[in-house]
Amino acid sequence: MKPPKLFLLIAVLVAFTGQAQVQNRIVIPDINGYKTLQCDFHIHTVFSDGLVWPTVRINEAYREGLDAISITEHLEYRPFSKDVTGSHNRAYEIAKPTADSRNVILIKGSEITRSMPPGHFNAIFLNDSEALAKDDWRESFAEAKRQNAFIFWNHPGWDAQQPDTTLWWKEHTEIYDKGWMHGIEVVNEKTYYEEAFQWALDKKLTILGNSDIHEPIQTDYDFAAGEHRATTLVFAKARTPEAIREALDNRRTAVYHKDLLIGEEQYLRQIFDNSIEITNISQGNNSITVTVFNKSGLTFKLKKTAHDKNVVYFREYEVKPHSRHSLTIRFTGANDGKLNFEVTNLLVKPGKGLHCSYNLN
Amino acid sequence: MKPPKLFLLIAVLVAFTGQAQVQNRIVIPDINGYKTLQCDFHIHTVFSDGLVWPTVRINEAYREGLDAISITEHLEYRPFSKDVTGSHNRAYEIAKPTADSRNVILIKGSEITRSMPPGHFNAIFLNDSEALAKDDWRESFAEAKRQNAFIFWNHPGWDAQQPDTTLWWKEHTEIYDKGWMHGIEVVNEKTYYEEAFQWALDKKLTILGNSDIHEPIQTDYDFAAGEHRATTLVFAKARTPEAIREALDNRRTAVYHKDLLIGEEQYLRQIFDNSIEITNISQGNNSITVTVFNKSGLTFKLKKTAHDKNVVYFREYEVKPHSRHSLTIRFTGANDGKLNFEVTNLLVKPGKGLHCSYNLN
Amino acid sequence: MKPPKLFLLIAVLVAFTGQAQVQNRIVIPDINGYKTLQCDFHIHTVFSDGLVWPTVRINEAYREGLDAISITEHLEYRPFSKDVTGSHNRAYEIAKPTADSRNVILIKGSEITRSMPPGHFNAIFLNDSEALAKDDWRESFAEAKRQNAFIFWNHPGWDAQQPDTTLWWKEHTEIYDKGWMHGIEVVNEKTYYEEAFQWALDKKLTILGNSDIHEPIQTDYDFAAGEHRATTLVFAKARTPEAIREALDNRRTAVYHKDLLIGEEQYLRQIFDNSIEITNISQGNNSITVTVFNKSGLTFKLKKTAHDKNVVYFREYEVKPHSRHSLTIRFTGANDGKLNFEVTNLLVKPGKGLHCSYNLN
Amino acid sequence: MKPPKLFLLIAVLVAFTGQAQVQNRIVIPDINGYKTLQCDFHIHTVFSDGLVWPTVRINEAYREGLDAISITEHLEYRPFSKDVTGSHNRAYEIAKPTADSRNVILIKGSEITRSMPPGHFNAIFLNDSEALAKDDWRESFAEAKRQNAFIFWNHPGWDAQQPDTTLWWKEHTEIYDKGWMHGIEVVNEKTYYEEAFQWALDKKLTILGNSDIHEPIQTDYDFAAGEHRATTLVFAKARTPEAIREALDNRRTAVYHKDLLIGEEQYLRQIFDNSIEITNISQGNNSITVTVFNKSGLTFKLKKTAHDKNVVYFREYEVKPHSRHSLTIRFTGANDGKLNFEVTNLLVKPGKGLHCSYNLN
Repeated sequence: MKPPKLFLLIAVLVAFTGQAQVQNRIVIPDINGYKTLQCDFHIHTVFSDGLVWPTVRINEAYREGLDAISITEHLEYRPFSKDVTGSHNRAYEIAKPTADSRNVILIKGSEITRSMPPGHFNAIFLNDSEALAKDDWRESFAEAKRQNAFIFWNHPGWDAQQPDTTLWWKEHTEIYDKGWMHGIEVVNEKTYYEEAFQWALDKKLTILGNSDIHEPIQTDYDFAAGEHRATTLVFAKARTPEAIREALDNRRTAVYHKDLLIGEEQYLRQIFDNSIEITNISQGNNSITVTVFNKSGLTFKLKKTAHDKNVVYFREYEVKPHSRHSLTIRFTGANDGKLNFEVTNLLVKPGKGLHCSYNLN
Repeated sequence: MKPPKLFLLIAVLVAFTGQAQVQNRIVIPDINGYKTLQCDFHIHTVFSDGLVWPTVRINEAYREGLDAISITEHLEYRPFSKDVTGSHNRAYEIAKPTADSRNVILIKGSEITRSMPPGHFNAIFLNDSEALAKDDWRESFAEAKRQNAFIFWNHPGWDAQQPDTTLWWKEHTEIYDKGWMHGIEVVNEKTYYEEAFQWALDKKLTILGNSDIHEPIQTDYDFAAGEHRATTLVFAKARTPEAIREALDNRRTAVYHKDLLIGEEQYLRQIFDNSIEITNISQGNNSITVTVFNKSGLTFKLKKTAHDKNVVYFREYEVKPHSRHSLTIRFTGANDGKLNFEVTNLLVKPGKGLHCSYNLN
Repeated sequence: MKPPKLFLLIAVLVAFTGQAQVQNRIVIPDINGYKTLQCDFHIHTVFSDGLVWPTVRINEAYREGLDAISITEHLEYRPFSKDVTGSHNRAYEIAKPTADSRNVILIKGSEITRSMPPGHFNAIFLNDSEALAKDDWRESFAEAKRQNAFIFWNHPGWDAQQPDTTLWWKEHTEIYDKGWMHGIEVVNEKTYYEEAFQWALDKKLTILGNSDIHEPIQTDYDFAAGEHRATTLVFAKARTPEAIREALDNRRTAVYHKDLLIGEEQYLRQIFDNSIEITNISQGNNSITVTVFNKSGLTFKLKKTAHDKNVVYFREYEVKPHSRHSLTIRFTGANDGKLNFEVTNLLVKPGKGLHCSYNLN
Repeated sequence: MKPPKLFLLIAVLVAFTGQAQVQNRIVIPDINGYKTLQCDFHIHTVFSDGLVWPTVRINEAYREGLDAISITEHLEYRPFSKDVTGSHNRAYEIAKPTADSRNVILIKGSEITRSMPPGHFNAIFLNDSEALAKDDWRESFAEAKRQNAFIFWNHPGWDAQQPDTTLWWKEHTEIYDKGWMHGIEVVNEKTYYEEAFQWALDKKLTILGNSDIHEPIQTDYDFAAGEHRATTLVFAKARTPEAIREALDNRRTAVYHKDLLIGEEQYLRQIFDNSIEITNISQGNNSITVTVFNKSGLTFKLKKTAHDKNVVYFREYEVKPHSRHSLTIRFTGANDGKLNFEVTNLLVKPGKGLHCSYNLN
């Protein structure tokens, strides 16, 4: 007899902990056959050198509409350990109930934190972080491998460890050859490492981009100004931990960083195609006007390539998020030609945007 | 043979007038049986004393996602007439093609602009504004009536015309008795006229709230800070001029002004009920936790009424737009009681919010 | 061999935090003879039930341009104590070096956290928080008094403890009579307690308003939308801890909460007078135009009082922060009269704004 | 009897526009010996194909804190001329009183609007725009020259006129040789023309950047997101029309566009040096920490150049506006070396940022 009455309880409310959470997920379309999950696999809390309690990281992810995160405390660097005690598994344990209630996927991870070489690596999909705390870094990697972790190299060109140039050391070859390196951060925090992107393409490493956040997230990102943390886009068969792992193992990822998408052409082209919808085409005498709607929360920066004097259109054009654009192509000669442009902020190789070409006749 | 190729023209673009328009309509739910249309029936351009070209008003409305507007130039006050010539119908004529292309309903109107009494009145759903330009205000009203216009009193308590108190003059009784006054602005620009709201309820006048905008809209409203112009919510059977007129004639309106909704209880209660969705209820030992989702873009300000010591809940609570809230009601005695609150920003009478009461047993 | 490597590692981790800090202090003018200091005396961190590391609180205060804060952990409620150990003095000790480097005054405090009566109290200007941890609340108060603390009642009408009405219990009379209550929170977090304001005026208690922040500050306040935490304005002879204490002891405070200033008329009038500068007066035939500049970051909401039919001016007028306003007063009879208005958001008593009256002849 | 009433009515309508104007000037420092004036010399209103009344342009400039503007209507293109009549001098005449009251310098100008070649040119510092309305463009230029105008080429690479590449036609050589071209827009609206920047450097033309605004300014620029119109920075001996003209004649300008400054090294270096203040230097064992304060509203993007393995510092670093930054430089060898970086958003040549080098010993 309670349920019906409670159903009438329309807008209720109350008491000690009225929590309001506004969600602002950036709309990024799914691609053919896969869900596009937004993930951050590199995060800190007071259990290493981060500045917030672990549950805060879940609420941040929830507000940003992230699908999955990993809290990856430094194993070897815990500056607050005099006051904050507990095992390397504690941050995960504390955050897990909040993650469950918020429907954020939480993946257990740790950061192996060494001087260069080999530098810092994250191991995620761990069972027991504590077992990775070893004196010899090779033993830490071996233990991560034993736990069937997914392991990736963090911020390969970090100023502090690679002050001059971004180098691949012989130790990285060793790690790679032993099957201890599955991915690499192409973006960490606010820095994009072009060399790492090339390595990922050449050596078939999974491409990752993560926030490595230490502060409360809003301290480093001005959400009101449209900023967002770097995320790894995972093209997964489902929104589950297992499906994320499968996608990581098969390199189906891209990185979303500032207004850049970074990844293989096959994925970026699908994101572009699934973002833009043609809503109207009207033929003029010597022109065509096309109205398009950008359904996504992404910006696309177009730049004319392979000029054709007979087809007059933008030199550069910015397609803003969630907006409608009416664009006219003028013909100065015959009513045909090609429309060629590059989407300069969709990087399919270092320095190279996604190229598009359409026949107009 | 062109169409298939053009269909491939995915994201095209171009040339002289690439117009980007981002739409930011405030989500206000429909009510049972009617669409909730967002309208502004009081607007100026350079064809009287406004400061923009008529097409600008359409683009402003489009960006805000308004359904219908009326450009209502002063018949008797055209300070720019030395430079801006043309009949009282010109602003409408110039704006109409843009309105059509933007799918904004444009209703022809004019403002009868006299000193007090009777002050300023808008006549909308006109055929010919020019015919209203008469020396005697009674003739202007009579002509509007002949054209079957919908006529309403503007800003009844405007400082400039009613400096001391908001009075209903004998001329208003005359106008009302002759069937020349169908509605009244309860809100004009940024001012809410409490007396006008009471008159509307007592005399069965249609309730209106309009911007009376003269500047570019962004000069007067800081959209980034969440501000919006005052609008008349019209509960119409369809999104057509005819359905708007039918709803106005039958007084199915409310006003949305700052964070206030102003109108009859029957409409405001439906907006509240259709905005708030219960997504979860969990029973504790001595408490209930209810999770609600506010689907609308409206804020609701709740205030406890009719206190019951056995039921512990918020004194005041703000339900923000598009947000999820988990709220706990604690029982100090038996697990029942009543939950009573007023939604203080949904005004059903001057100074009186919408009252809600729910049984908890 | 490892230690040197780790030492190098740590140095590197610390060395590269290039920290950018933008300061956005709200401009509130000094009053005659005193500096207006912006303070928050009620703040939590992970050392009780707050969610950030103590140094974060300093950086938050720094960015907002606060002059002084007090971190006031619950003595009796430490839900994270399994993981976060350390004495009741730890949060202060950890935050102090950052406070010094940021030039934020940090005042040692603690929160005595009991069920009602007597509820929660803050004791600030403590020497040793640890000594206040007593079973009997009377002993905690007595110890605070022994340390010469400044003690105030927190959130007197908190829903959770005073569900029905805001009551002054006999225990509060006891505390007051023993000299254990020097002030009272008229605003806590986002709630203004009108009864507490009246008590403060009647019983000569110091008026305080504080954030009681637990989350990262940006989670609860949307700074981009112009929101700010509640602060206690302290009118002090200098920007020093001693001068703050002297001002608190002599009740020279007010509260800044949302767009309200709450306090005694003598202080609010000076803030109003020192915010508004008349930059020009021009005489028309039947009017005066006054141009004023609001030098402060405060909004002032004016409402006409004591109407005079011969002097025509605004019914309501909002003076925005850092803005210039040209206002015309029209005379319908003789060119004189009085300009009377209330500043409705400067509360000098519960429900009563600051009244202003100027002769115009 | 009516006239007096109407007269009263008009007075009333005018009297009560209580105008609030918040000014948000971007802080750009003066350089040695000159004031840095922020100017926009390319603006439209309803008197050609703009969409606002001329006074709106003054209020926009006032709110943005601009020092000087020029309203430059098309002589040959007036699509609203059926409704908006009046000479080519009218926009100036209407705007002038508002400009005077707002203390915005208004410079009379016109746009000579021809197909390519020679395209569009602005002539400013005119006496009589009407006299420039000639069939032959050479006569328009000659008349502008007779009036001692300052003449510059607008948007030299505009898509609509130069669809493929940005070309300098023989007509431009003719114009240049006749002394009819004194400057060139390196930035127009939102587009930067790299070729034009090179021409300006090679041919000693004055560098200009202007908005060419047609819409209400807020429609094209999201001020809340930190956007601003392109402006010409004029380094003038005083804030007067004469001093602006003298500076234009002597090429003392730069362009501020998005986060770019574009101009000669001598001016950009002074702006950088006068923006950044070193507030503290502290010596560590193997490091120096430098605290700098960016006093300006500009962002500076630093990028390491000429790497030195012994000096470890940022690869890239962004100095935000009005912010304090603590930067640590670590020495791995001897405690000296050079700090080399490029300010990549201060363009002293096409594609080349301002280079800085400091000795650290």
